[in-house]
Amino acid sequence: MKFNLGCLLAYDILQPSTLIFNIRPYNNNHQKIEQETLEITPQIEIEANSSQPDKENRYFRVNANPGKLEINYRATVESFPLHKEASNIIEIPPAELPLKILPYVLPSRYCQSDQLIQLADSEFGTLLPGYSRVQGICNWIYEKVTYLAGSTNSQTSAYDTAIERAGVCRDFAHLGIAFCRAMNIPARFVGGYAYGLTPPDFHAFFEAYLNNEWYLFDATRLVPLTATIRIGTGRDATDVSFATIFGSVQMQQMKVFIEPVSEQNTTPPQTFMPTTDAIATC
Amino acid sequence: MKFNLGCLLAYDILQPSTLIFNIRPYNNNHQKIEQETLEITPQIEIEANSSQPDKENRYFRVNANPGKLEINYRATVESFPLHKEASNIIEIPPAELPLKILPYVLPSRYCQSDQLIQLADSEFGTLLPGYSRVQGICNWIYEKVTYLAGSTNSQTSAYDTAIERAGVCRDFAHLGIAFCRAMNIPARFVGGYAYGLTPPDFHAFFEAYLNNEWYLFDATRLVPLTATIRIGTGRDATDVSFATIFGSVQMQQMKVFIEPVSEQNTTPPQTFMPTTDAIATC
Amino acid sequence: MKFNLGCLLAYDILQPSTLIFNIRPYNNNHQKIEQETLEITPQIEIEANSSQPDKENRYFRVNANPGKLEINYRATVESFPLHKEASNIIEIPPAELPLKILPYVLPSRYCQSDQLIQLADSEFGTLLPGYSRVQGICNWIYEKVTYLAGSTNSQTSAYDTAIERAGVCRDFAHLGIAFCRAMNIPARFVGGYAYGLTPPDFHAFFEAYLNNEWYLFDATRLVPLTATIRIGTGRDATDVSFATIFGSVQMQQMKVFIEPVSEQNTTPPQTFMPTTDAIATC
Amino acid sequence: MKFNLGCLLAYDILQPSTLIFNIRPYNNNHQKIEQETLEITPQIEIEANSSQPDKENRYFRVNANPGKLEINYRATVESFPLHKEASNIIEIPPAELPLKILPYVLPSRYCQSDQLIQLADSEFGTLLPGYSRVQGICNWIYEKVTYLAGSTNSQTSAYDTAIERAGVCRDFAHLGIAFCRAMNIPARFVGGYAYGLTPPDFHAFFEAYLNNEWYLFDATRLVPLTATIRIGTGRDATDVSFATIFGSVQMQQMKVFIEPVSEQNTTPPQTFMPTTDAIATC
Repeated sequence: MKFNLGCLLAYDILQPSTLIFNIRPYNNNHQKIEQETLEITPQIEIEANSSQPDKENRYFRVNANPGKLEINYRATVESFPLHKEASNIIEIPPAELPLKILPYVLPSRYCQSDQLIQLADSEFGTLLPGYSRVQGICNWIYEKVTYLAGSTNSQTSAYDTAIERAGVCRDFAHLGIAFCRAMNIPARFVGGYAYGLTPPDFHAFFEAYLNNEWYLFDATRLVPLTATIRIGTGRDATDVSFATIFGSVQMQQMKVFIEPVSEQNTTPPQTFMPTTDAIATC
Repeated sequence: MKFNLGCLLAYDILQPSTLIFNIRPYNNNHQKIEQETLEITPQIEIEANSSQPDKENRYFRVNANPGKLEINYRATVESFPLHKEASNIIEIPPAELPLKILPYVLPSRYCQSDQLIQLADSEFGTLLPGYSRVQGICNWIYEKVTYLAGSTNSQTSAYDTAIERAGVCRDFAHLGIAFCRAMNIPARFVGGYAYGLTPPDFHAFFEAYLNNEWYLFDATRLVPLTATIRIGTGRDATDVSFATIFGSVQMQQMKVFIEPVSEQNTTPPQTFMPTTDAIATC
Repeated sequence: MKFNLGCLLAYDILQPSTLIFNIRPYNNNHQKIEQETLEITPQIEIEANSSQPDKENRYFRVNANPGKLEINYRATVESFPLHKEASNIIEIPPAELPLKILPYVLPSRYCQSDQLIQLADSEFGTLLPGYSRVQGICNWIYEKVTYLAGSTNSQTSAYDTAIERAGVCRDFAHLGIAFCRAMNIPARFVGGYAYGLTPPDFHAFFEAYLNNEWYLFDATRLVPLTATIRIGTGRDATDVSFATIFGSVQMQQMKVFIEPVSEQNTTPPQTFMPTTDAIATC
Repeated sequence: MKFNLGCLLAYDILQPSTLIFNIRPYNNNHQKIEQETLEITPQIEIEANSSQPDKENRYFRVNANPGKLEINYRATVESFPLHKEASNIIEIPPAELPLKILPYVLPSRYCQSDQLIQLADSEFGTLLPGYSRVQGICNWIYEKVTYLAGSTNSQTSAYDTAIERAGVCRDFAHLGIAFCRAMNIPARFVGGYAYGLTPPDFHAFFEAYLNNEWYLFDATRLVPLTATIRIGTGRDATDVSFATIFGSVQMQQMKVFIEPVSEQNTTPPQTFMPTTDAIATC
């Protein structure tokens, strides 16, 4: 599946500030950047390769002087989602978990899985282990939590959402992650582009580590899993903000877009049907 | 400075369980393991090298069957703390921070620095930047927070300690880290052995990233910085637990010891005087 | 039903301190004190009638000097629980609620009903209004929350218990109250004596305002409702502590007892069967 | 001092709803209602006297059908603030506190004084007891907390404000109350009209119980204490909402006004100077 996508971000910089952006998709075997352009106005040089060594997040840093700042990013990206038969996908017990995965089974700022163990165990403890259990977690969230724009803020965590039962995509992802970790299933936050959101925006979903791969989940059911392009992953939203800002800055404008590319030999957009396949992402 | 140190940990394993231990000190240029023995009873094979790729933590995993489990670790470790002149140690602004350090300036499970920005700014915003500002943070904590065994639990976070003003070494470290991050100074949690604690126990302190190095701080003032041996580092205590347990386990016994080795040509123990030097750890 | 009951409370008073006790049962039409003795050692005069004007709580205040303090209370109390047919008991809508009842539908320290509205509505919103809905709330709590001594502390609130799913009688009562209020059903905390607890202790339960009366509920199912004697009521545990302490005091001993009085013409103890009747308390 | 004051509140009632308003000032010796009119459109009969027995709050309840609802209240009120010499005003120790005052020294929904004891003690424990200590608390809040419209929401409590250091009048009052209670000084929330607010709005301040009277405090310093008219009091904002709503309602408009009445023999408005007198309110 191929998409044209991108975003326009405009800021007023009030004092010299540093902005670390995370808006460019991953570029790996499962998701190829065919072409991309990044325009920064005024022109500011950025480091060639700003990634963290252990992650594929393609951060770039802008050290901006007072005045306007505009980030204009466009790319054509082809995704090759791996469809797997869900019933074969097993959980990896802590006894066999690669240790580099350990951080994703521990609690984090917005995913206090240590406090949700009793709740998770009583709701999901009797479900069959495997892909379907994480689906069960997503179903629970979808049924019990109301998607309500503006109902939460940047301090809202999974603990709050488990109680208050309202939130946005970020909150749905945090709760899914926290429940997984409470069941000893590693899970991480994913930020990305998603085709079909109204209004268009960045989207948040999550991945669970099953069968020694990462599988995509989205408890909001707002878009098909195959209509998403991953930007970055981390322990929770703290690690995958589209803009981490140090300084004094006001956002003036934000536009996000993603459209399928209609070519010959390409599946047309109308085929973004919900799938019952599991989607592996790396 | 050379130490004999170690610990004895005994558990009742009630069901097959996985325990990931983090009790062996770092082994690098600043801290050399001269010799060490690790006995696990009953004998259980562990992976040769269980470290996470980006960290020097020397985790080892024990998959234990029901019954008794005893971990007996002993080592002789020599530390080479780097003494630096504190007044030369500057803060690294976000504009120049290596991106691999970014996670340590973001909030985490127990260090909600995003919620402490106003407080940190009003208390520490007018202090001179640099090593002395982090010392100012430690002084604030030492003066305002009461060290009180049993006053907190595994869910207590920096947010709570900033209000409730009582805690143990782990809480002191979390608050120091959270304040540093709220001031855009990267900081991380350190678990270790420390000579002089009564009763002997594992100790928690923290490091701040200054001058492109990590410097050691301990707001408890319980031991001299040079009398510590580092076991591991992480974003907060979640990453540096001496035992992360998956399963059903009861601790039966825990003994921790550390003693300076008195050799000819070795500084005798009585020289562990508080120092005004900054101590760099890597 | 007639009971002999009482308590022995012993303290070390470290500095001149004020203790406000709430250990004497209500004395009204539904619960008659036949006789009672209150011994305070050393002998300290207390006010004759220390009640708050709008409540039947029989507080007494002790201004104690350093040294030992012992409170010894014994009473014989007969209770006349009103058995009602549960199916006739309706909810009183806010449109008709006496305004003096208003405080009991608002949130309080330990019962943050404002934060539980979504959860309560999704779990109990489709239940038939009336007595049976409050029973449904109690069933939910009984089934989902584990009674676990020592799992909570004096800061634990209904918000926490709704998530963490473990607690003691006080936490069960707070959660029941919070859920009721979230459904616009007034509810209040009740402290009392209860026959059949192991080990003997003060007990906490709650009342909901239905049908223009207060009805008793206990989500712990530890004792039959008819085996309880009420000491006091309030918005939550803050108002009904058996001892509110100002000063520096250490508890040395606490004994609570309650036994049915076996007289001729008195129902023998073995008849404390769970009842399906609703029990009105005033 | 005489004021014309009032408010206009307009709502869309979406379903049959109950609204309990608390917008009419107290009418007692210290504050006389000279005249008042209350128009409800559409015309709805309200109970003649809806007050709670133990409070002077003049609630009125509106049971509204779907459609528009408009509340129009106007009054002329004369206040007779009692000026007292601050240095004579003492704290009443718990040993002598009337028991009807006890609820105001206990924690409540938004004033978790039990969690602020250490902080209050370290900041205010060495201040001289009496009126000046409560002034010290207000000064601390004024200096450390930023008044910032929109920075908080209906769930923000004193615990949060003590950390996050930003809020509005309601948050300033909650923190003042919580600190007082943590020092064993009874304190309660006051809602009222206040002359000089920009934009005009209801105001929140607080009272502390000293010298067996209630004294007015306002840590926001937005208006002189003598330029306020009290509507109601309670344990915190839960009890003194200008509108407690049960049902489905959208606010359409809210206007609040208060102007001094310029008559002969009346102090002209320009004399609302900050006073160093203590102001007793009842």
